[in-house]
Amino acid sequence: MAERRKAPRRRILKPSLLIVGLLLVGTVAWRACRHSGGKDLHPEGAVAQLERVTPSANPAGLPNIVIILADDLGYGDLFGYGDRLLETPNLDRMAAEGVRLTRFYAGAPVCTPSRAALLTGRYPIRTHMTLPLYPTGHPMGLFLNAIGRYPYGVTGIPEDELLLPELLLRRGYRTGLVGKWHLGDRPGHLPNANGFEFFYGTLYSNDVTPFALYRNGRVEVPAPADQDLLTQNYTREAVGFIRDHGQEPFFLFLAHTMVHEPLHASEAFRGRSAAGLYGDAAEELDWSVGRIMATLEDLGLEDKTLLLFTSDNGPWWQGSASPFRGRKNNITEGGFRVPLFARWPGVLPAGLVSNELAISFDLFVTCLEAAGVPVPDDRIIDGKNLMPVLQGKGPSPHDTFYYYFGHELVAVLHRNWKYHRRYMSDNGGYPLFKHGPFLFDLERDPQESYSLIESEPERAQRMARMLDEQDAAVAANVRGWLP
Amino acid sequence: MAERRKAPRRRILKPSLLIVGLLLVGTVAWRACRHSGGKDLHPEGAVAQLERVTPSANPAGLPNIVIILADDLGYGDLFGYGDRLLETPNLDRMAAEGVRLTRFYAGAPVCTPSRAALLTGRYPIRTHMTLPLYPTGHPMGLFLNAIGRYPYGVTGIPEDELLLPELLLRRGYRTGLVGKWHLGDRPGHLPNANGFEFFYGTLYSNDVTPFALYRNGRVEVPAPADQDLLTQNYTREAVGFIRDHGQEPFFLFLAHTMVHEPLHASEAFRGRSAAGLYGDAAEELDWSVGRIMATLEDLGLEDKTLLLFTSDNGPWWQGSASPFRGRKNNITEGGFRVPLFARWPGVLPAGLVSNELAISFDLFVTCLEAAGVPVPDDRIIDGKNLMPVLQGKGPSPHDTFYYYFGHELVAVLHRNWKYHRRYMSDNGGYPLFKHGPFLFDLERDPQESYSLIESEPERAQRMARMLDEQDAAVAANVRGWLP
Repeated sequence: MAERRKAPRRRILKPSLLIVGLLLVGTVAWRACRHSGGKDLHPEGAVAQLERVTPSANPAGLPNIVIILADDLGYGDLFGYGDRLLETPNLDRMAAEGVRLTRFYAGAPVCTPSRAALLTGRYPIRTHMTLPLYPTGHPMGLFLNAIGRYPYGVTGIPEDELLLPELLLRRGYRTGLVGKWHLGDRPGHLPNANGFEFFYGTLYSNDVTPFALYRNGRVEVPAPADQDLLTQNYTREAVGFIRDHGQEPFFLFLAHTMVHEPLHASEAFRGRSAAGLYGDAAEELDWSVGRIMATLEDLGLEDKTLLLFTSDNGPWWQGSASPFRGRKNNITEGGFRVPLFARWPGVLPAGLVSNELAISFDLFVTCLEAAGVPVPDDRIIDGKNLMPVLQGKGPSPHDTFYYYFGHELVAVLHRNWKYHRRYMSDNGGYPLFKHGPFLFDLERDPQESYSLIESEPERAQRMARMLDEQDAAVAANVRGWLP
Repeated sequence: MAERRKAPRRRILKPSLLIVGLLLVGTVAWRACRHSGGKDLHPEGAVAQLERVTPSANPAGLPNIVIILADDLGYGDLFGYGDRLLETPNLDRMAAEGVRLTRFYAGAPVCTPSRAALLTGRYPIRTHMTLPLYPTGHPMGLFLNAIGRYPYGVTGIPEDELLLPELLLRRGYRTGLVGKWHLGDRPGHLPNANGFEFFYGTLYSNDVTPFALYRNGRVEVPAPADQDLLTQNYTREAVGFIRDHGQEPFFLFLAHTMVHEPLHASEAFRGRSAAGLYGDAAEELDWSVGRIMATLEDLGLEDKTLLLFTSDNGPWWQGSASPFRGRKNNITEGGFRVPLFARWPGVLPAGLVSNELAISFDLFVTCLEAAGVPVPDDRIIDGKNLMPVLQGKGPSPHDTFYYYFGHELVAVLHRNWKYHRRYMSDNGGYPLFKHGPFLFDLERDPQESYSLIESEPERAQRMARMLDEQDAAVAANVRGWLP
């Protein structure tokens, strides 16, 4: 006679809650008094730099700038090998009419720091924007703080940072943000306080409660906002902004919420894609790109507009990072590598595919250069002008990229070599334990499978030193103020 | 004048240690009295089943069986797309002379349960071998126990389990284990107590201290054993075992320690591969396969020997899981999919590549069938005979596979559809939070990128029910005893 018994109940949540509980009780208070926020402000703030910008005498001669940023859209979703399940005819057309970069890096593998990098031209650690922001009291924010992931303790982008819209506004641009902000929710940290004359969108990721829709300083759709219509609403507002300002130079930052989880698509797109709801949402994004292009065409602004499309980091739960290892939140290439399309008929060639190294903070400098705005000189700007690369006329302005995960410097890229200092985080995650360092030749081994550290010990040592030097330089001057 | 301050010290270790410390203090004692180990033993043990095995009247007519098991070798290391950095001429030859399965699953995405599945023909949960074992008092074992990952609390494979070598021994085979055991370190749980007449090897993974080399019950090389020579030593002992028993039927389980981290290779292989030390170690494994094949050839045993090669799970820190998502420790395909080569000249065709679904516990049944041993009938055996598949004569005996992670049932495969119940674990790991379910069509989307759950709600519900039913069946009879 067989003996029978009940299997143990699944208890995954209990020890997990225990971890959270014990950590919160034990360390929140301790951490709270260790934050450095506010202690390393710019002595003079941003005003002097803004005064360096000359308002254009001939605004009509300035190019418009539109940056469309997808959320969590993967490299492989657009650039993947083999059969693609997604259909993106508008992005395909944008690539055919412009330039595609295959070695383009997000500034960080998560939302907030990646956006900070793009808008400030700096590594996120310099702006204190090292991890996603949460509303005050949100459990995830408390948890991340408790385990020491917010050493700077700020809740929004510091007021002494110079954002792309602030500089362009001073130059004479009309500036608008449609979509996701995610750089702060308090006075002084809101979009309208940071150079955007117009704001329609959301303050957080769409998995964070409360999720409301704002128009400038006011809630237009109280939480919970209907996310099915988000891409439609953003697109309507973006098109409206372009139409309103077609006769002036404008800077539009269209920061879509999709395809960040939870996924949503409007009725017209739901169930349409072969790639499920993710595909529906991504195809609606593509439609949105098409609407922007059609609006520019309608207004005869195509040749006068630098149009950029990218993603803030690798794909999260769904989407494809192919051919790379890892995804969003990972320090492998799958977290950082994103698609980049640039179109500016008459200025950029059509159909160019470039393998030159470029980084999202380069877009800050590239846009300033296009607009004739001097790059700030009172602070370290990590970005470089990409125009020569985009025109196919010059090599990458970078040979090095530093991978930060939160405030930790974890890896460095030098030409085709990538050195991981300590661990990689995509296999069940034992960040408690050291499993490294690793050295990969991304040219031969883009998936970071085979470390060459034993056969290239001197190269590894040099790259370890690069990390130490970067750490020391940042430690001496976190915010990167220049004398 | 720029303000300067020190960057915060990296404190990653402190909160981590805090987690471990608080958890240990708080829960070890609580857990210790909740273990079910020993409460669900087979009422009669394994003796009656062993007595069902008839010792062969013509042992010379029995085929030899050699299973070579690599540790943490990835699917993509051998089956990857594009340029392969590894050179494995011997495995290439083995595949050319035999059969290659492209849809072969390990029974689990980590060492101990995967080995238990292979040797018992059963899902690891039935044998209580759900997670890697550690020596008594090892911090990792204590930690995993503290967070509830050892609900059965056993420290070795239960004595009432029937292992492949026990059954083959009774049939008249000489049985040997060379290499890694990892199914227990106490009396009753050691290889020689589980059907292996001969044992040369190690009791744990090679990242666990103390790491000694045993010959049968005795330490031959005290810890720390020189791991550079491990593959050489294993191969020498394996070749010796074959030579000693060439005139009798033999079962050899050559369970290599490589390419589990820390990686090692002998001087002759170190620095030889284009894929770094991982490649060196993998190429030495390939050499070892070549030595086994050459020994069989020398002794004229090729046609009399079923030779099998596989890996226990996906690749860990290094190695390639291409084209799949995730790696060892993950519940995505990259954790479970492994290469399988089978060679038996005259019985299996040469050069066959089969896409039929097969699972490592099938090897248990397949080997028993080849040896004329009846499959145990007092317990659920999940494995099936693969001979028709290996001969290219029949379809897979399975249409379903259940993915366990530890003792948790997390996903199910049904034909080409995979349903994840709750989350996937390869992107920075938020197992505290639910991010699912997900439904993937592995035929069109082998990388598990695009969930079709919204467009296939009924299929998803059916598969969710399959999981509930499997959970209920296992809860009613964890060990799977049959009346």
